[in-house]
Amino acid sequence: MNLKGIAASDGLVCGRAYRLVEPDLSFERRQVSNLDNELKRFHQALEAAVSDVETIKMRATKSLGTDGAQVFSTHITMLQDPDLIAAVERTIREDGVNAESAWANAVADFEETLEKMTDNPYMQERVTDLHDINKRVLAHLLQVALPDLALIDQPVIVVTHDLIPSDTVSVNPQFILGFVTDVGGRTSHSSILARSLNIPAVVGTQTATQAVKPGDQLVINGSQGTVIVDPDLATWQTAKQAMVDRQANLDHLATFRNHKTTTKDGRGVTLAANIGNASDLPSVLQNGAEAVGLMRTEFLYMNGDQLPTEDEQFAVYREVVKSLSPKTVVIRTLDIGGDKPLPYLHQHPEANPFLGERAIRQSLAHQQIFRSQLRALLRASAYGHLRIMFPMIATLDEFRQAKAIYDDERSKLTTKQVPLGDVKVGMMVEVPAAALLADRFAQEADFMSIGTNDLIGYTLAADRTNQDVAYLYQPYHPAVLRLINQVISAGHAAGIPVAMCGEMAGDPIAVPLLLGMGLDEFSMGAGTILKTRELIGQLTADDLGALAETALNSASTSQEVVTMVQAAVPGIVS
Amino acid sequence: MNLKGIAASDGLVCGRAYRLVEPDLSFERRQVSNLDNELKRFHQALEAAVSDVETIKMRATKSLGTDGAQVFSTHITMLQDPDLIAAVERTIREDGVNAESAWANAVADFEETLEKMTDNPYMQERVTDLHDINKRVLAHLLQVALPDLALIDQPVIVVTHDLIPSDTVSVNPQFILGFVTDVGGRTSHSSILARSLNIPAVVGTQTATQAVKPGDQLVINGSQGTVIVDPDLATWQTAKQAMVDRQANLDHLATFRNHKTTTKDGRGVTLAANIGNASDLPSVLQNGAEAVGLMRTEFLYMNGDQLPTEDEQFAVYREVVKSLSPKTVVIRTLDIGGDKPLPYLHQHPEANPFLGERAIRQSLAHQQIFRSQLRALLRASAYGHLRIMFPMIATLDEFRQAKAIYDDERSKLTTKQVPLGDVKVGMMVEVPAAALLADRFAQEADFMSIGTNDLIGYTLAADRTNQDVAYLYQPYHPAVLRLINQVISAGHAAGIPVAMCGEMAGDPIAVPLLLGMGLDEFSMGAGTILKTRELIGQLTADDLGALAETALNSASTSQEVVTMVQAAVPGIVS
Repeated sequence: MNLKGIAASDGLVCGRAYRLVEPDLSFERRQVSNLDNELKRFHQALEAAVSDVETIKMRATKSLGTDGAQVFSTHITMLQDPDLIAAVERTIREDGVNAESAWANAVADFEETLEKMTDNPYMQERVTDLHDINKRVLAHLLQVALPDLALIDQPVIVVTHDLIPSDTVSVNPQFILGFVTDVGGRTSHSSILARSLNIPAVVGTQTATQAVKPGDQLVINGSQGTVIVDPDLATWQTAKQAMVDRQANLDHLATFRNHKTTTKDGRGVTLAANIGNASDLPSVLQNGAEAVGLMRTEFLYMNGDQLPTEDEQFAVYREVVKSLSPKTVVIRTLDIGGDKPLPYLHQHPEANPFLGERAIRQSLAHQQIFRSQLRALLRASAYGHLRIMFPMIATLDEFRQAKAIYDDERSKLTTKQVPLGDVKVGMMVEVPAAALLADRFAQEADFMSIGTNDLIGYTLAADRTNQDVAYLYQPYHPAVLRLINQVISAGHAAGIPVAMCGEMAGDPIAVPLLLGMGLDEFSMGAGTILKTRELIGQLTADDLGALAETALNSASTSQEVVTMVQAAVPGIVS
Repeated sequence: MNLKGIAASDGLVCGRAYRLVEPDLSFERRQVSNLDNELKRFHQALEAAVSDVETIKMRATKSLGTDGAQVFSTHITMLQDPDLIAAVERTIREDGVNAESAWANAVADFEETLEKMTDNPYMQERVTDLHDINKRVLAHLLQVALPDLALIDQPVIVVTHDLIPSDTVSVNPQFILGFVTDVGGRTSHSSILARSLNIPAVVGTQTATQAVKPGDQLVINGSQGTVIVDPDLATWQTAKQAMVDRQANLDHLATFRNHKTTTKDGRGVTLAANIGNASDLPSVLQNGAEAVGLMRTEFLYMNGDQLPTEDEQFAVYREVVKSLSPKTVVIRTLDIGGDKPLPYLHQHPEANPFLGERAIRQSLAHQQIFRSQLRALLRASAYGHLRIMFPMIATLDEFRQAKAIYDDERSKLTTKQVPLGDVKVGMMVEVPAAALLADRFAQEADFMSIGTNDLIGYTLAADRTNQDVAYLYQPYHPAVLRLINQVISAGHAAGIPVAMCGEMAGDPIAVPLLLGMGLDEFSMGAGTILKTRELIGQLTADDLGALAETALNSASTSQEVVTMVQAAVPGIVS
């Protein structure tokens, strides 16, 4: 049987299916006569649950560090909470009911108490944790398996309805060969997670969780979006060989994990990761990123139905900055607007949202949101090496205004004696005007980071999400290269570093050109870092200056640039 | 009584109202006994109508030249058509009916005949002319006045429901002090016409034709959008003085009409007009334009409910090219797309139409429309000095593809021995990529014309029609100036002329900078030409190179540029 889905993360793998499907945890309240036995059942389930969480915590600590695994310590503390335990025991003894019912009652009371603590966001957030431990204890009482990514200890292909952000911490790439989901598209969380972990994935099959039985043999092709259930031998063997080759390549790339990034002739550059969420932290470390060149903050604003509080933001920024210290982390202020609207802000629709009130324009127009984010960032700066970056800067007036607001919030916090770190304040260069005037911006910004996705779109006047004009989204268009070169030269003339945080930074055709122009930092999806480090190690910086020069001065079209790079770096493929 | 409308064309004037309102031309068919008298009535009305049209034709010849007045010769020919006259006479005699009825019958038969000539577009177009002469003869038979702009022979303020394109040829600016309309906005035809003729206008008053009686005294303020009916003496006198001052200024500007455009130190440049329609031709001549730097062709496509035929287009292009010869006329191929959709093309909606499939992208994707336009243009080229310009060029591939299609159509017409003129083929520079790569484009294009309206929008990534980001539409942003300078330098290095056809070309703050950068041709709304010619005559080109240099190299913001220009050219105002 074949299933067709969406190609979400490249690679061909075979393995047994592990269905990650929510089990039925329903039960009935009933009177029991043997109360001692019921108390024993409760304590056994509790211990088994604690043991599960200990295992998960251990795995998470390995991938995330102590801070990242903090949430599981909280789960254990809750499972061992004397008041909660006493309440369950009392209900069993006094009401003579079954353990499931007594436990569920006690959890419900606990939940009510937590939810009443409206002035304590920390305790309110514990409700989610309570749901987690509730399910875990019930599963043990009902003796049904609670599938959990973190408990997987042999190689399987996970088949599930969808992955949620919190699944990230539980994924052990060693045992998870691939993902198949019912729902989602190429940009859904499941897909992004799979790509950042280099795990092949097919999403949006619609029926996988119904069509696949636990233990079924599967072959999935993450490049083509196909899932074969019970494949024939030849198909299985082809996939097996692809896995061997793939693993050999990953092992090979892994040898670059702790290397510095240098060209063959010894020029060092920084390879950094773009992340969208604190849950991307494991992939940053696993892929040997030397820094985070772009952390997006939109997820904080788009997940809920109201603005995140300053404290909620602070907790996330602190976790990222602290986990990665002493690596630097560049956090971009809110890049939201017409194309990524916040329903609760009631932004009016725009005829051309990409040319509308987005990013810094929105921040300057709605300063209370911007100021709250800046305060959260400033407070987090005490815990590591933070850089703040403003998106979509088009005029010096905007940069100065944003910087003045930053200075204002900084001095207010200083007055309150809030501990603050040394923060560099820079800008994205993604509007053509900023690139063209980079020499002036470089006098006032601490650093510049070229955002190629938008820069290319505006320079060619093409919306790359519009199929009819997607062909105009040309990263190698000589005009784009000239803008990039202007920014790098202007930054260096002013003595500030220049990074790139668009997809182009990890593109094999672009990398030699960018090295030739002298780019300092390449920031990309974590999954591309090791390949890029290997590539850079094979290149000779001294030769690339001339290549870049030729492309800048003599190329007329994108195709001519590609041809030039391929001639200068034999064997390179786009 | 005061009326409030929309300020459509600046200026304060006073005068008597002339109501241009369609009269009641209804009549009844009735039997008449005195047939000779009826025949006499018919011939008198016919003669009066011919006399009217002769007057109108004379006026139109003066403002439009013989070709522009051609349509009125057609009217006279039709009024004198022996078959038509014979048909009327026969009906009067044989049926014994009144002249109105006989005339209307004959006209209806004639119309039917014309409409059947489906293979002769010329004859089909005559239906409109037939309607015109029908009304004129009926008005004389019924002895009601047929208000006509062309028959106005003393200074009045015209009060009408709306102006239509064909009114343009009839306007004698000498006698029309101002316009007041019921409907329309700043960009409606009435407003554009009024501005191009420098006649004060208030549009969209909703009730003017009802509220104003013929001969009422009016004061209209075209800058504020107000109309005062029966003003007090002081208001009248203020307006009178403003008219005197205004006329003095117009008289003064008129002295520049036939001048060459040169700076104080003798550098010559070309001042050209942007037009949107053949009906803008009078304003081109009245304002002393030396060329047409941009003729838009969208009106041909947007007025009907289907594509214009090649012959319909040819007729318009030929009229423009021929009327203006030996002046050069730059005609831009269709700039249409998501933001200016053609309902009959069924374009699908785009998330960001300004970054979508518009202009040359649309032409290359729908080649049959493009090829038909190119054939019409090529055929018109035999009648004057035509240049063809492709809009929204972003890559050399696009320019080469468009040029190849042009070459293909040209050689097909040559094979058919269709007479063709010498045509230059150039491009708009309005996408940042084209400006950045102008040195390469200049190797292949015959000329370049900078379209600042879009170039500024893309460079700043701002949709100027979006109020929230309109402040980012900054013509003097140093990044914009740098792009413009690159294009001019690249054009000159390659030995081709560089023009500008955006609003910026007539902006007093921009003009000294553009002269300093060496721009060859300034193309603007016709109403701005004489003012700009006067301004350029006061400037010293030799001083402006240094001004441009400073703005390009040292200015950080739009405001700094304005300050620099104002310091260098005392007394200049934006």
